[in-house]
Amino acid sequence: MAGTDKSQEIIYRPSPAIILCEPQLGENIGTAARAMANFGLWDLRVVNPRDGWPNERAVAAASRADHVIEKVRIFATVQEAIADLSMVFATTARQRDLQKPVYGPEEGSQRIVSHIAGGAGAGLLFGRERWGLLNEEIALADAIVTFPVESAFASLNIAQAVLLMSYEWRRQVDKGEVLPFDGGLDAPAPREELHNMFGHLEETLDRSGFFKTEDKRPNMVNNLRAIFARASLSSQEIRTIRGVISSIDRMHLRHGRPPKDSADEGGEE
Amino acid sequence: MAGTDKSQEIIYRPSPAIILCEPQLGENIGTAARAMANFGLWDLRVVNPRDGWPNERAVAAASRADHVIEKVRIFATVQEAIADLSMVFATTARQRDLQKPVYGPEEGSQRIVSHIAGGAGAGLLFGRERWGLLNEEIALADAIVTFPVESAFASLNIAQAVLLMSYEWRRQVDKGEVLPFDGGLDAPAPREELHNMFGHLEETLDRSGFFKTEDKRPNMVNNLRAIFARASLSSQEIRTIRGVISSIDRMHLRHGRPPKDSADEGGEE
Repeated sequence: MAGTDKSQEIIYRPSPAIILCEPQLGENIGTAARAMANFGLWDLRVVNPRDGWPNERAVAAASRADHVIEKVRIFATVQEAIADLSMVFATTARQRDLQKPVYGPEEGSQRIVSHIAGGAGAGLLFGRERWGLLNEEIALADAIVTFPVESAFASLNIAQAVLLMSYEWRRQVDKGEVLPFDGGLDAPAPREELHNMFGHLEETLDRSGFFKTEDKRPNMVNNLRAIFARASLSSQEIRTIRGVISSIDRMHLRHGRPPKDSADEGGEE
Repeated sequence: MAGTDKSQEIIYRPSPAIILCEPQLGENIGTAARAMANFGLWDLRVVNPRDGWPNERAVAAASRADHVIEKVRIFATVQEAIADLSMVFATTARQRDLQKPVYGPEEGSQRIVSHIAGGAGAGLLFGRERWGLLNEEIALADAIVTFPVESAFASLNIAQAVLLMSYEWRRQVDKGEVLPFDGGLDAPAPREELHNMFGHLEETLDRSGFFKTEDKRPNMVNNLRAIFARASLSSQEIRTIRGVISSIDRMHLRHGRPPKDSADEGGEE
């Protein structure tokens, strides 16, 4: 469908980041870029693309969405790709054994629009062509977004999933229906702080013998992460929880001998 | 995105016909078929396809939406293709000098859903890759449907336009119906279990010296409780967190002397 007005300038308005996780085909990156451009998105991040970057097939498939392609950023892991965001939704067509809220595209987009209207960063995570996102990637997200597809034919192409979410985002923005106030919750922390907290907790639990056997560990880690990812923790709350972990962890030092290590991060408000 | 449940039967419910007008690329016919299948549409009509029919590239691009491809009907003109329908909307990204109502995808789909619910046939007309629909083709339609795209980048691929309309149709049909799966979030635990967890955590933190001064304690307790109260924890998750607390708390016992207290609640799934 023709209709582009070349006299118009591209507008870079605050909008969600689109994160493609290990896409195999350059065409899909390009078509996703084009779909984003159609609805005014521009922040495209690619985790570990199979064929490297830049990719000629992506450029060709983008069909002149050059302003998106030129800004593409490449990351080695999902954690790095979402480090600066404070709301991340994972898209999937399959039910997962993870404790996460599940939204449709409409409700998911409404939440993203409200979040971004509050000045914060949000992102949408899309999985591989063949098998989507891994559970450990979904565990990093606040919630799941899934599409109202036919269960007998549920497999959406990545670029089409990106298109639908871009369309829904635009539709919600254009409604301008952001609520006049929110719950006064502090802004959620950038993802990196949450990841560091995960690392702190899991390292401590490794030492404490919490994960009784190595094969149980991945599931238990995902379940623990799901609890905290769901809670939209602020930076202050993350510091508090890290203080809690450290405080309990070091208790025996204080009890066993003089508390020489008083400059820890425990208990600060 | 994987997720197709092959045990499910295809349902042919009353839904709008999709009419592609003189498509050049078989790929676009196939991708349109796949997009239709995702949202439960199945009546695909093609007017005068450049490369004839059947078309191998269409079959490949349909990605197993065979039930749509096998039912494709070929017509010589738009008039013949829409002859049995009583409501037809033409999609276009460009303003036309035609006196027609113009709807967005949402309003257009609502009208189609109502029309079909009344037992009548409806269709959506999509134009050529390069220049869309001719004015004389649009003139045959009841109304125009256009998309809320960026005017600086308005060119939607045909299959993507079909996808958006299929999605919107499905969304309107399903209004108030459920997503294919929900989060399966376990029911939040009775408040008493949460309170007991608070007690366990706070007692441990009292011993660990987390609350540096007594006057800081109430606020810090409230902040900690707020985090966990917000997370809608299930009974299992509460047991997990209590296991985490106990595990860290007792680490020094295990490290300092033989673990005589192995019947603790730590680390059970």
